[in-house]
Amino acid sequence: MDLDRLKVSSFERVTRPIEPKDSGLITERLGLLPGHRVFESGVGSGFLTASMARIVYPEGEVVGIEIDTRKLEKARENLEQLGKVYEKSVMLKHGDAREYLEGLEDEFDAMVLDLPEPDRVLEVGLDALKSNGKVAVFCPFFEQVRTVWQVLEDRCTWLEAVELIERKLQVEKRGIRPGRTLGHTGFIVFGRV
Amino acid sequence: MDLDRLKVSSFERVTRPIEPKDSGLITERLGLLPGHRVFESGVGSGFLTASMARIVYPEGEVVGIEIDTRKLEKARENLEQLGKVYEKSVMLKHGDAREYLEGLEDEFDAMVLDLPEPDRVLEVGLDALKSNGKVAVFCPFFEQVRTVWQVLEDRCTWLEAVELIERKLQVEKRGIRPGRTLGHTGFIVFGRV
Amino acid sequence: MDLDRLKVSSFERVTRPIEPKDSGLITERLGLLPGHRVFESGVGSGFLTASMARIVYPEGEVVGIEIDTRKLEKARENLEQLGKVYEKSVMLKHGDAREYLEGLEDEFDAMVLDLPEPDRVLEVGLDALKSNGKVAVFCPFFEQVRTVWQVLEDRCTWLEAVELIERKLQVEKRGIRPGRTLGHTGFIVFGRV
Amino acid sequence: MDLDRLKVSSFERVTRPIEPKDSGLITERLGLLPGHRVFESGVGSGFLTASMARIVYPEGEVVGIEIDTRKLEKARENLEQLGKVYEKSVMLKHGDAREYLEGLEDEFDAMVLDLPEPDRVLEVGLDALKSNGKVAVFCPFFEQVRTVWQVLEDRCTWLEAVELIERKLQVEKRGIRPGRTLGHTGFIVFGRV
Repeated sequence: MDLDRLKVSSFERVTRPIEPKDSGLITERLGLLPGHRVFESGVGSGFLTASMARIVYPEGEVVGIEIDTRKLEKARENLEQLGKVYEKSVMLKHGDAREYLEGLEDEFDAMVLDLPEPDRVLEVGLDALKSNGKVAVFCPFFEQVRTVWQVLEDRCTWLEAVELIERKLQVEKRGIRPGRTLGHTGFIVFGRV
Repeated sequence: MDLDRLKVSSFERVTRPIEPKDSGLITERLGLLPGHRVFESGVGSGFLTASMARIVYPEGEVVGIEIDTRKLEKARENLEQLGKVYEKSVMLKHGDAREYLEGLEDEFDAMVLDLPEPDRVLEVGLDALKSNGKVAVFCPFFEQVRTVWQVLEDRCTWLEAVELIERKLQVEKRGIRPGRTLGHTGFIVFGRV
Repeated sequence: MDLDRLKVSSFERVTRPIEPKDSGLITERLGLLPGHRVFESGVGSGFLTASMARIVYPEGEVVGIEIDTRKLEKARENLEQLGKVYEKSVMLKHGDAREYLEGLEDEFDAMVLDLPEPDRVLEVGLDALKSNGKVAVFCPFFEQVRTVWQVLEDRCTWLEAVELIERKLQVEKRGIRPGRTLGHTGFIVFGRV
Repeated sequence: MDLDRLKVSSFERVTRPIEPKDSGLITERLGLLPGHRVFESGVGSGFLTASMARIVYPEGEVVGIEIDTRKLEKARENLEQLGKVYEKSVMLKHGDAREYLEGLEDEFDAMVLDLPEPDRVLEVGLDALKSNGKVAVFCPFFEQVRTVWQVLEDRCTWLEAVELIERKLQVEKRGIRPGRTLGHTGFIVFGRV
């Protein structure tokens, strides 16, 4: 089994999934390791959930909260294809991220948010991170970078906002040239509490 | 333990390591999963080895071949900090990638090359991949993209050359602006046999 | 005489000048031609003034308003090196852009703003443009793109926000690779009334 | 009249024209001024010819050599719309760039090449540049950057290879985000003899 093929050929897309360039950077920057506990919301199609679950497996877990039941069911179907990785290391729950996190302390090594109004979730949710825990917030719009940054800058010892631009090369008989299309893009704000 | 911090604070760099943006895309595109066997050469400082080992753990393995003994020793020191992930899922060997691969068949789910003259290794090494196995070749120069592509295009059913450009945002009181520096970059050629 | 060398070797920089990539795009997108009358504020070091004056010469004119007298004097010294192009086609004035434009109608073929709070100037200044006249606003920050866009969208029949990313190639004996540095950058909002 | 609109609405495209981002950078980096004499080949649709002619006007001239008679006629029709700028400052000729330049000395302030095998033209044509004259070569492919660089590096005191990446911003009610499309791109090699 090849996770990339699985996602492309069998994962049904209920929403525009985070691109591989971005999910890859997230798993690197969060420094995920086997045994980690990760909080994710929303779950969307489960693309990023799958990328993280394969890392924290077998002792660790990705807890995915999704407010849209239709998406949640589809994510479950998608992720069940991972077999033991799904069974051991993915916990999907229906609900609201803000409500779920409120009151939790010292629970997660990392947290990933890809939902509207991430600042509202961060306001109550950062205590759920363990000491030195990391957060990644996907922001399609510049305006979100600002609101997320404002919540994080008082709480984080390290903070960074990044964009990845992906370009394919066209390899032709005549020569190699930069391609003309770009994938979907957005900004990712990373922080460490 | 946080792999990103570990790499940044404790991994000694004996060579310019592959950037997180690129190692992240490689682990995504190769579709790595727990249990996979991966061939890697050169090993360099062990940055990418660590990223892949944490995924294939516990049943899988990254076999890393490095021709430079000084680099190999340093990579070993770096990777030992991963503890059980290193012990179970990293196998480092001194040697030449071409010689190691010659004659091997159906051994690896994926192969990553980051060394001079990758085309010479690919010429003899692709049979070491299992059916539908994937290869990623890091190419600092355009010229290498061409030579690698030429070897792969007859053997691969899917082939792609990509570059990631990383830009940090400067978040200032006055406003948010694109940053002025870029990380090290290179091209990555991906193929599936 | 070569304008690029002149700017680089003899123009004193009193402020960070607009990069050649951006001044080039501005003169293209504004569609400047000999005979045009152009409004510019601020003048800064006179880099962009020079690029535009050489085009509208000999019958046209760039009217440059600068509020900082020290910058204005330096721009004058810089631009005097253009000789007849300066004498015939540059008019520098000390003053405030908003005050200068207030009440003017149908005066300019094009308008270029590179100053703080361009939205305040646009609110009163767009009537100074002739029918189908064009405006270009340089915005270092995303937030300015928004405020400028809001003023222009009711008045313009065409509106566009663009960023140019410049990359040098490193041409080495071993091969060609993308360079690692970027020039200063910003966004340019173009509109036609 | 607005050159940008004229090009977009009335210039017939017989070939993929150089983008405004690139033609703008070329006129900046070549340091063109009124009175300059410029050599251009091929002429294509006349887009770049128009951008340069409006600058060197009225005393200067762009000499455009085009080997394809159909393109040449279309470029002439396009450029005639410039009126006096065309009449005074554009000279179109049918022919081969290499043949035209052979034996010429000290004729041009600048030279722009956008044709196949520019290295063959440069081999015989650089003497046609005045002392300190500049050359710009548009290269769609990396391979051309190499061959052009090799011819120029012995003859030039300054040499640079550049690419411009243009991104539009999508300004939406919800926020501002980077656009997903890129214009056509290529590399430009600049040199000064």
